[in-house]
Amino acid sequence: MELKIGLVGCGTVGQGLLEILDRKRDYLKDAYGFEPRIVAITDKLKGSILVPEGLDIRKLLALLAGGKRVDEYFREGATAEIMDPLDMIEKCEADVIAELTYTDIKTGEPATSYIKKALRTGKHVVTSNKGPAALHYGELSKLAKQNNLHFRIEGTVMSGTPVFSLCESGLAGNEIREVKGILNGTTNFVLSKMELEGMEYAEALALAQKLGYAEADPTADVEGYDAVAKIVILSNVLLGGELTPADVKREGITALNRGLIVTAKEQGFRYKLIAQTRKSGAKIEASVSPQKLPLSDPLAGVMGAQNALTFDTDLMGKITIQGAGAGKIETGYSILSDILAIHRRLSAKF
Amino acid sequence: MELKIGLVGCGTVGQGLLEILDRKRDYLKDAYGFEPRIVAITDKLKGSILVPEGLDIRKLLALLAGGKRVDEYFREGATAEIMDPLDMIEKCEADVIAELTYTDIKTGEPATSYIKKALRTGKHVVTSNKGPAALHYGELSKLAKQNNLHFRIEGTVMSGTPVFSLCESGLAGNEIREVKGILNGTTNFVLSKMELEGMEYAEALALAQKLGYAEADPTADVEGYDAVAKIVILSNVLLGGELTPADVKREGITALNRGLIVTAKEQGFRYKLIAQTRKSGAKIEASVSPQKLPLSDPLAGVMGAQNALTFDTDLMGKITIQGAGAGKIETGYSILSDILAIHRRLSAKF
Repeated sequence: MELKIGLVGCGTVGQGLLEILDRKRDYLKDAYGFEPRIVAITDKLKGSILVPEGLDIRKLLALLAGGKRVDEYFREGATAEIMDPLDMIEKCEADVIAELTYTDIKTGEPATSYIKKALRTGKHVVTSNKGPAALHYGELSKLAKQNNLHFRIEGTVMSGTPVFSLCESGLAGNEIREVKGILNGTTNFVLSKMELEGMEYAEALALAQKLGYAEADPTADVEGYDAVAKIVILSNVLLGGELTPADVKREGITALNRGLIVTAKEQGFRYKLIAQTRKSGAKIEASVSPQKLPLSDPLAGVMGAQNALTFDTDLMGKITIQGAGAGKIETGYSILSDILAIHRRLSAKF
Repeated sequence: MELKIGLVGCGTVGQGLLEILDRKRDYLKDAYGFEPRIVAITDKLKGSILVPEGLDIRKLLALLAGGKRVDEYFREGATAEIMDPLDMIEKCEADVIAELTYTDIKTGEPATSYIKKALRTGKHVVTSNKGPAALHYGELSKLAKQNNLHFRIEGTVMSGTPVFSLCESGLAGNEIREVKGILNGTTNFVLSKMELEGMEYAEALALAQKLGYAEADPTADVEGYDAVAKIVILSNVLLGGELTPADVKREGITALNRGLIVTAKEQGFRYKLIAQTRKSGAKIEASVSPQKLPLSDPLAGVMGAQNALTFDTDLMGKITIQGAGAGKIETGYSILSDILAIHRRLSAKF
């Protein structure tokens, strides 16, 4: 079955998705009967293009690899026509809009407006954008339901490592009491280097920046803001909460030093930046803070840039999943994963 | 939506399922619109009962808890009418048959005949029985497809910890190159006790037997046969193989002693009984053997009776899931998980 897809934003995640769709075209058709058709792209920097009959993905990728704009797809050097994303979302004939613009964790905009426009004009939405998911999940999922549409957010936590789809299918029927994990690869990389290679904090952070794991301004990672956005999403989606980032107790890793980490190790413990949310009755309490875990905790063994989450459930006890937390292909895959979930529902025959 | 369920076998797994359905009746209805109706039960020891209007699960559980037979449901002390399971499968009006009889890993019978009868008379099948899944998966899943029915086997590996549903939904679109893990809780418990508490093999095994983790005859666990059956299932279902248990290289844990384990630990390694299957081209190679894992391997941290699996995928790299590998409620949940998956498909509206 064919699905028409529109991309709003065509940076790293969008290009990761396009690369997968190109590389695995035959496999996706043979194994799942899934035939994606990219009918629209709009990007603040790379222009806009509406192609109802579908783009040649390989040609598009070659264009982008050459530093060209998407609106040069038809004629080289064409003047950029930057269609307003809201117009494009409304006009295009996509079944699914992949919202892949930048994250603004203070307002959730402009992504939230794009998502609303899509849901109001009959399009399913998938996104890896933490802003709308952390700030407006309740409103957006309600809007989707009212319109018999899907709003899926797998890529907002742990990139394409299954979190929401795991709870929705593999753990269906369980009530989740607590979710606890390592949700920021940058800080986990820094802590791993400090313990395993005896680096001081500044040295480990500089290495993370050199390798591209950390931004020039590392505040969002090392002060825990990134993990806060993710634990808010998990609280609201999996525990039915209505938290905002301000409700989360937050402490970053900047107060840790090598001495503390070495002492902990000698005592059989390991420091991790742990994001945690727990439901007691109607109350949900969430926090992000460095914790000394015993080495027997499944989360203690998670090293480097990996992420992991432990779900505490009523029927299955504790279930832990570990995998990549970031990456071009990995986050591109999160979008494919959500689109395939929609495709499965739409093509369910029995 | 209501689903009519027939149980073939009502031992530990069946009673685990019934307990969950009783305890979570309101939740399953509210959260999933799922309303199970148990319309038939047949058990070699506990008799048979056909109740088209559905059994009162709590009344049935009280009966079983009192050591009574299921055919005493209507009148106490009734003479047992043991209906032939094949007759009952054919006659009952179940939408889904839960096949929960004993495992015969040499022949897969009588379970395989029960499953075929169900699929040939229009009933979906879910099972936690390793026999049919390890020996006849290809044939049974083909038969299901021909009849537009589901044949689901979540509980055959790692009880209700998501394995097949994880690959089917959360990892959809990935090609799996290798699956590797700890699939036998008894041997993992024994190895953990030998390392952490300095027990010798015989002592640790005796403790496992005392706690009910190991059988009086522990051969199936300690010689690796149980793990062999599971890695055959994973090879055939996830890698598209056609292996039989005889194709798997097998070595148990009986040759390990405390000295080997302590030496490995001093070198930063830990012995685990690892089941592994890998695809190279069209060839699939599977084995079960004790391996010395570096402590950085996510599988090295899996202690006690827990199970874990690492999937090596083309898009997401390595994804590891850890959870319970056995238990009454946990295996009962695996059956519910598969039934809910069928329910999702049948009730998919958009």
